[in-house]
Amino acid sequence: MSEIVLDNFGDEISKKAAKKAQKAAEKAAKKAQHKAEERATNGSATNEQSGGPAEDVSVGKYGICELICSVENKPVQHVNISQLNGSMIGHTVLVRARLHTARATGKQCFFTLRSQDHSIQCVLALGPSVSKQMLKFVAGINKESIVDVTGVVVKAAQAVSSCTIEDLEIQPSSVMVVSLAEPRLPLQIDDAQRAETEGDEVARVLQDTRLDHRILDLRTATSQATFRLEGGVCRLFREYLTAKGFTEIMCPKLISAASEGGANVFGMNYFERKAFLAQSPQLYKQMAIAGDFEKVFTIGPVFRAENSNTHRHLTEFVGLDMEMAFVHHYHEVMMLIGDMFVHMFRGLEKEHKRDIELVGKQFPATPFRYLSPPLVLQFREGVQMLREAGIEMEDDEDLSTPNEKLLGQLVKAKYNTDFFILDKFPLAVRPFYTMPDPRNSKWSNSYDMFMRGEEILSGAQRIHDPKLLTERANHHGIAIDTIQAYIDSFRYGCPPHAGGGIGLERVTMLYLGLDNIRKTSMFPRDPKRLTP
Amino acid sequence: MSEIVLDNFGDEISKKAAKKAQKAAEKAAKKAQHKAEERATNGSATNEQSGGPAEDVSVGKYGICELICSVENKPVQHVNISQLNGSMIGHTVLVRARLHTARATGKQCFFTLRSQDHSIQCVLALGPSVSKQMLKFVAGINKESIVDVTGVVVKAAQAVSSCTIEDLEIQPSSVMVVSLAEPRLPLQIDDAQRAETEGDEVARVLQDTRLDHRILDLRTATSQATFRLEGGVCRLFREYLTAKGFTEIMCPKLISAASEGGANVFGMNYFERKAFLAQSPQLYKQMAIAGDFEKVFTIGPVFRAENSNTHRHLTEFVGLDMEMAFVHHYHEVMMLIGDMFVHMFRGLEKEHKRDIELVGKQFPATPFRYLSPPLVLQFREGVQMLREAGIEMEDDEDLSTPNEKLLGQLVKAKYNTDFFILDKFPLAVRPFYTMPDPRNSKWSNSYDMFMRGEEILSGAQRIHDPKLLTERANHHGIAIDTIQAYIDSFRYGCPPHAGGGIGLERVTMLYLGLDNIRKTSMFPRDPKRLTP
Repeated sequence: MSEIVLDNFGDEISKKAAKKAQKAAEKAAKKAQHKAEERATNGSATNEQSGGPAEDVSVGKYGICELICSVENKPVQHVNISQLNGSMIGHTVLVRARLHTARATGKQCFFTLRSQDHSIQCVLALGPSVSKQMLKFVAGINKESIVDVTGVVVKAAQAVSSCTIEDLEIQPSSVMVVSLAEPRLPLQIDDAQRAETEGDEVARVLQDTRLDHRILDLRTATSQATFRLEGGVCRLFREYLTAKGFTEIMCPKLISAASEGGANVFGMNYFERKAFLAQSPQLYKQMAIAGDFEKVFTIGPVFRAENSNTHRHLTEFVGLDMEMAFVHHYHEVMMLIGDMFVHMFRGLEKEHKRDIELVGKQFPATPFRYLSPPLVLQFREGVQMLREAGIEMEDDEDLSTPNEKLLGQLVKAKYNTDFFILDKFPLAVRPFYTMPDPRNSKWSNSYDMFMRGEEILSGAQRIHDPKLLTERANHHGIAIDTIQAYIDSFRYGCPPHAGGGIGLERVTMLYLGLDNIRKTSMFPRDPKRLTP
Repeated sequence: MSEIVLDNFGDEISKKAAKKAQKAAEKAAKKAQHKAEERATNGSATNEQSGGPAEDVSVGKYGICELICSVENKPVQHVNISQLNGSMIGHTVLVRARLHTARATGKQCFFTLRSQDHSIQCVLALGPSVSKQMLKFVAGINKESIVDVTGVVVKAAQAVSSCTIEDLEIQPSSVMVVSLAEPRLPLQIDDAQRAETEGDEVARVLQDTRLDHRILDLRTATSQATFRLEGGVCRLFREYLTAKGFTEIMCPKLISAASEGGANVFGMNYFERKAFLAQSPQLYKQMAIAGDFEKVFTIGPVFRAENSNTHRHLTEFVGLDMEMAFVHHYHEVMMLIGDMFVHMFRGLEKEHKRDIELVGKQFPATPFRYLSPPLVLQFREGVQMLREAGIEMEDDEDLSTPNEKLLGQLVKAKYNTDFFILDKFPLAVRPFYTMPDPRNSKWSNSYDMFMRGEEILSGAQRIHDPKLLTERANHHGIAIDTIQAYIDSFRYGCPPHAGGGIGLERVTMLYLGLDNIRKTSMFPRDPKRLTP
């Protein structure tokens, strides 16, 4: 049912018009093919053609395929580049991949095939079955075109350091273009994945250029690895919580003015009234707890209409949220979340080792360190460490971003961990629904979790008693009628509960040691960017 | 970072004010407790009290706990009702659960404990350690309150048919209220989960009442089972695709006017311009394919500003979307999706057997039937079946909702399957980006999938060639500049690809044979409902 995205364009057309369209399309495709072949075999083509096509021993072995529109359902015999290995030497394989680069040197054409983050070199040499025409055609294929190459796997004459497969090559007998790229690319894949360590004299791609042409930027080994790992973060989060008996729930993003509100909210017309975009699934996961689901998680977009143009703010990001009823103490939940992170870090290390290495090639970072069980510090201990490092701050002052960063460094130096939990935040700096510390109401039953000195999770025990919640809201000066539905959720019995919310893009960014959240959001949204 | 949902209320308050708030809250809580105890032990309490508290042999064995605000981190010794079994007879257990119902009969009080969809009967009898006061207190505890019960597991005197555990009972020695519900409930859990087959004379709960008080409605065994199973649908979808090498991606919901547009779209102010809510992740999953991810899936909300008030439309629902590059034929993708459904149906049968039974108790339905491999019919075969059943329709007319339903019945009668794939839809009724059938452009490389006669997936091979795509858009009368970014995505080489989008709530609804999509959306949104 998701197909109707462009449905407004999908008006019925008459059968005649459809037929006409189809014919026109076919004609256009043929014309394009002809042009491309002409260009690919440019210049000398006329010389060759003067001798007549009979001279071309490679006829049928190169060219541009007809548009693949599912004419025949043949068995797939293609092999992926990543599957190629020494045992295949001497065998003929069929590979579909992008033509990454090509260069002709007189009687030879060297070209690189790339498939995701794997690559292999092909060597096409003039010979009894390879014509000059074929050589020129292949050398002229536009970079990033997708080709079907049939050829023999051979041992590379010398190590091909520019490819991921260094010890093998393919000697092609056929090179067919499956999808032709335009001749001029807005950015070069090699430029986009150049290592940061390579110095300033090499070509680089600016961030806005990357994002404007995201489909090309996504093709770099770095992007492939980054987003595969990001998928892994979600998988490991769910895997751990599912094993612990959590239920996955879905929370609405369209909310009424009544239940939430205030600044930094996107609002819109909703039939005869106003609706807003949820800034978090907080209320809904708490309602699921009041509704007896006991342990829930939810993954989905959250929206912040905040005009922040920093390396770590987005107007839309993905929240990994969880909420859990506990028996005696919110540390039952806090420690479970801590363990979840350890499970995640272990899983990333194990299942995404190659991805971490690939990203590290372009953006070197120190490996992510953590302790098991994770380090837990009291907020006041953190303040103490900062004071010892010369920072002046109050006991119950919130951590500024620079102080967070510094604390991360101090903790790393002292405990050798990039991940830690800071427990017992001052009550005054937390939202009204945070449970006060029963021993000292200067503090609260709340915690943040940090990766490389940046907050990636905020959580707390929530007040599950409607009377205390009302009191606290009053003392924060909140108009009770605006949060009545929230308070009412706790009127029919609710277990004590705690939870937290994680920013997916931040976790990926900080785990990999990247410097900008736009590197870990596939299609980032900020106050200035809404496309592609 | 999701904690700031109500951040606008979270202004700092002075320490003094915080302290004051805390004290007031504690006072309020104590007052509430006192009142509740008074009410729980109402009427006769005065009589008892005249004898003085020394007479109460149960002092300390009943009452209302202080608000659990994590004073002490004790080991959790509670047992879940679902864990109770015959081997525990004679043992003392501690259970936290809701008080579902209670009735006193002179010297005894029978009460039912409920935890999610499990329940057990407790029998409290006046005796050497159980006072009259305790009996009255327990009999008076408001329904839906959460209690901690300590007691001995005994064999039930006779089968307790009203509980899930029929052969055991608990003889409590202590009953403490952990979270007190208000005395009047807006709906009764038993009414909300009454079987449809029970006839008209029993109390029922109207849908709007349920949804207005969703946290109570979610507590029924039916709701618990429904949403657990819905989580299972997501899990099985991901499990299958992950095993097939798919990458999970995240697609933005905020989109610019340029790339999509038209009717049925929610629009809003986005800093200095306009933004819209995505009606599907279609464009973005195709961009991920153009960006070399090869096989992707994404789960997230999709938005439709459609003023449809039917049993199967929502303004916000959850899309399970996938897209995949193929080699020769879109059936490589279509059959993979079909297999995914078979995997899902098998998994639901196996892992959610009890959930299916629980839902069936309230809403009886025939078990969901399917074939493996799934049944694939041509669109024209479907039309033929409808014609044979007396329906008049054109060859290339789209299926109306009643005709879909009828076709589902005809297919069920002929093939004994509730799931089938209808392939080769007329080109004219599909969006412009659908690949025409290469043999006959009256048809297209597109398919719908059906469950119990309702469409739950729509999919197709997409046109991956910018020239043909432009042609088709032109012939649909679409202004090219409004979809330029979409078309440009295919300019730098793109493999042939196909995919589809599934409506989560519809799959759950139809799998379980439910009659309204609001039963499978935890917090449904329609033109009239935006709360809770």
